Amino acid sequence: MTADRLRFVLFLNGVFILAMALAMLVPAIVDFGAGNSRDAMTFASGFVVSAGIGVLLVAAFNQGDVDPKDSRTGLLVTVSAWLTATLIGAVPLYNSHLGISWTDAVFESASALTTTGSTVLFGLDQMPPGLLLWRSLLQWLGGIGIIVMALSVLPALRVGGMQLFRAESSDVSEKPFPKVRQIARNILIVYLSLTLLCAIAFDVAGMTTFDAVNHALTTIATGGMSTKDASIGYYSSLPIELVAIIFMLMGALPLAFYAVFLVNRGKRSTIEGQIKAFLLIVAAMTLACTAWNISQGMSPPTALRLSAFNVTSVITSTGYVTADFSNWGSFAMGLFFLLYFIGGCAGSTAGGIKIFRWQILFAGSGRVLRQMLFPNSLVPVRFQGRSVDDVAIGNVRNFFFLYLVTTLILSLLVMATGLDFLSSLSSVAQGMGNTGPGLGSLVGPATNFAAIPVAAKWLIAISMIVGRLELVTFLVVLQPWFWRR
Amino acid sequence: MTADRLRFVLFLNGVFILAMALAMLVPAIVDFGAGNSRDAMTFASGFVVSAGIGVLLVAAFNQGDVDPKDSRTGLLVTVSAWLTATLIGAVPLYNSHLGISWTDAVFESASALTTTGSTVLFGLDQMPPGLLLWRSLLQWLGGIGIIVMALSVLPALRVGGMQLFRAESSDVSEKPFPKVRQIARNILIVYLSLTLLCAIAFDVAGMTTFDAVNHALTTIATGGMSTKDASIGYYSSLPIELVAIIFMLMGALPLAFYAVFLVNRGKRSTIEGQIKAFLLIVAAMTLACTAWNISQGMSPPTALRLSAFNVTSVITSTGYVTADFSNWGSFAMGLFFLLYFIGGCAGSTAGGIKIFRWQILFAGSGRVLRQMLFPNSLVPVRFQGRSVDDVAIGNVRNFFFLYLVTTLILSLLVMATGLDFLSSLSSVAQGMGNTGPGLGSLVGPATNFAAIPVAAKWLIAISMIVGRLELVTFLVVLQPWFWRR
Ligand SMILES: [K+]
Ligand SMILES: [K+]
Repeated sequence: MTADRLRFVLFLNGVFILAMALAMLVPAIVDFGAGNSRDAMTFASGFVVSAGIGVLLVAAFNQGDVDPKDSRTGLLVTVSAWLTATLIGAVPLYNSHLGISWTDAVFESASALTTTGSTVLFGLDQMPPGLLLWRSLLQWLGGIGIIVMALSVLPALRVGGMQLFRAESSDVSEKPFPKVRQIARNILIVYLSLTLLCAIAFDVAGMTTFDAVNHALTTIATGGMSTKDASIGYYSSLPIELVAIIFMLMGALPLAFYAVFLVNRGKRSTIEGQIKAFLLIVAAMTLACTAWNISQGMSPPTALRLSAFNVTSVITSTGYVTADFSNWGSFAMGLFFLLYFIGGCAGSTAGGIKIFRWQILFAGSGRVLRQMLFPNSLVPVRFQGRSVDDVAIGNVRNFFFLYLVTTLILSLLVMATGLDFLSSLSSVAQGMGNTGPGLGSLVGPATNFAAIPVAAKWLIAISMIVGRLELVTFLVVLQPWFWRR
Repeated sequence: MTADRLRFVLFLNGVFILAMALAMLVPAIVDFGAGNSRDAMTFASGFVVSAGIGVLLVAAFNQGDVDPKDSRTGLLVTVSAWLTATLIGAVPLYNSHLGISWTDAVFESASALTTTGSTVLFGLDQMPPGLLLWRSLLQWLGGIGIIVMALSVLPALRVGGMQLFRAESSDVSEKPFPKVRQIARNILIVYLSLTLLCAIAFDVAGMTTFDAVNHALTTIATGGMSTKDASIGYYSSLPIELVAIIFMLMGALPLAFYAVFLVNRGKRSTIEGQIKAFLLIVAAMTLACTAWNISQGMSPPTALRLSAFNVTSVITSTGYVTADFSNWGSFAMGLFFLLYFIGGCAGSTAGGIKIFRWQILFAGSGRVLRQMLFPNSLVPVRFQGRSVDDVAIGNVRNFFFLYLVTTLILSLLVMATGLDFLSSLSSVAQGMGNTGPGLGSLVGPATNFAAIPVAAKWLIAISMIVGRLELVTFLVVLQPWFWRR
């Protein structure tokens, strides 16, 4: 690990801190306008301090002679950026009038930035607008970070088979980080337009403008933080639920790849297969949940409405709720638990294992079965019209292994804090998948994560970050050999 | 699928049915001696009918001109043998004085033969000896079947990476089933000797001779069925628990490979790595469980004694219990849940994912992490001193995927019968791992599987057979192309 590289990493962290400092001005102004000078000052002083630190880092470390496309640098920038952003995001929450602990502030910030959306805060309905907007902004900014990562670091470093989504088919050189800046600009346009559209739709459907803006920021990011304790359930409005369903689905589609492909006029075939599979899974799971709810005595229209919304919300890893689905009986409990793992499309802000990996895992199983009878036959594993090479299949299978093992181990550690089996397992599974609500009476949709032990909060926050970084990105930085020259 | 092949499969099934018919004579004689003529007649007539069917099949179908070492034939023989044996094993249970349903009889038989050891029967302590011995014999015979399979079909068909354990290093020809008969004879000697030793040890430690024989049969097979409702806990005897611990560990070591290697004077290095890892894991898990129990207020000696026994029992997939460990608090619950998945050594009767697969999965992850920084470096995945080829790694990773996905899907189906989340998940996980007790108040160590819905019993029985057949062996026979010419 060269000193130059570390300097460059610190420099880039300074840039990110500056960006977050600027974002703090928004809630500062809003709270000032709303007459909540207490928190307006919090955000304003947060801006001053963060901007100071940012400027200092940028000024002090802008002299490194480092190739920004080097793998080790890219990894360090990625991992440190998420940790730094989580910390900076927590500062105004800690300093606000809420008087919450550092644990809660960091949990809330990590949950927001990773677009998980789990919360430890009650009384959102009465909260001043600045804090609510800050949470929404963190989710929206986190969403951009995720998409940039999905188009640059993840494919370049072959994270969990993401090399299948290299931004340009022409760019298969060894340079790991192609055209990050141009790509980021394209995404920003798509992302901003969708957010605007979503905000208008929520507004038309009956939300206040403030709620519409907040929910638009957290819907497109599949974040799921709300301005109401009861989440979208607060509105009891079919139009609002339909708008949310449509934009949650949009958020879980491979927006980023669309953005790039539209600009580059590249082949589109590589992104369409997962969309079809994804929508089929959403439909099948909605139907299964509807059928179960009807069998449990719910009226068919209610069953369909509640199932469609909450299934879509969990599978897109948004995490809005309109009912306590962990109270719908054992099959529903199991179904939502399974949904945590499925996830959305690659190149979106959705979490979980993701559709393309499931497609490759099942196709890979088909190959294994066939080769039992015909050991010498070549059975190509096809994904969206192309043959997938063995390295990518191996990366995907290894991702599945690490995902499940990490979930089991972190759950076990959470259980060691005294939290019960279901709460622990569902908290970690939703954290790894960046979903939002847990299952059961303690951390389920009807409540939040406020009441659980401090150590459990830290472990669940870790699960969010590890899941968001798609495991290997995080794990590689923990290896001793990563730090050797 | 040629008619010749089907004839050959029916012929071999006839041989297996004949063997089981002969085994029925043992409980027939024992029950006759105990004055329980009701069940003695059940077993005697079971013998007559089974022997009749067996002779008929052998006589009618002994004319096929089939290569017994052909993959498709081997698969059909394997899968059909387990299903036939389950059915034949259930007949005397159904016809006995117990008056149980076909569901319960098939569940009990599948559980016995796959050496799972879950039971739906209460009142074992008062049960006539014939039925108890029949359950123990089924476990012991199932154990032989498993070991023969582990040395022939599984390595030949590369099931979940089992090709790493080909019986002889010289035999790497394309012939899938090398020397099945000689291997079976060697195993039988080792297996019989160990059973005898175990019976003597239990007898010396204080069991009645009948109990000692039964428990020896079910310990060496890591089966876990007992002659007491309270399992080994009934005896409250440290010597008996120590004998059980030693022989459960023996049962989970790669006995079969020892047997073969001792005779062939082969290299031993391929079997020692997993033993060391296995014993380390048992020790670590015992310590973790002991520490937790002490933290919950148990006295250190009691904590150690209970933890050592029950952890060893579950990780070896035997399933004897001396306490209701699902009542020890959340961490213990999570720990035992994890143990279901770990499993023993390949080449033993133990179930679960198995130690060598974990070793390869973790080594494979290490390679993936390293190649993120050094994409062109060759990082060998080493297992017990040898480099593992990519096909084997792929098979192991795919096994892990199928194992977890099957567990999740079967659990979800069990939940659809109305069984709660914990009972469903733990029932299927223990079934897949052929362990024995579930978790929670409904299917946990303090009770058994009698009270759950009929459909759940069938699904859990399926999980036992699918787990025992190491998934792909079962799944490949379900493929339409398997049946094409
Ligand atoms: K979310
Ligand atoms: K067992």
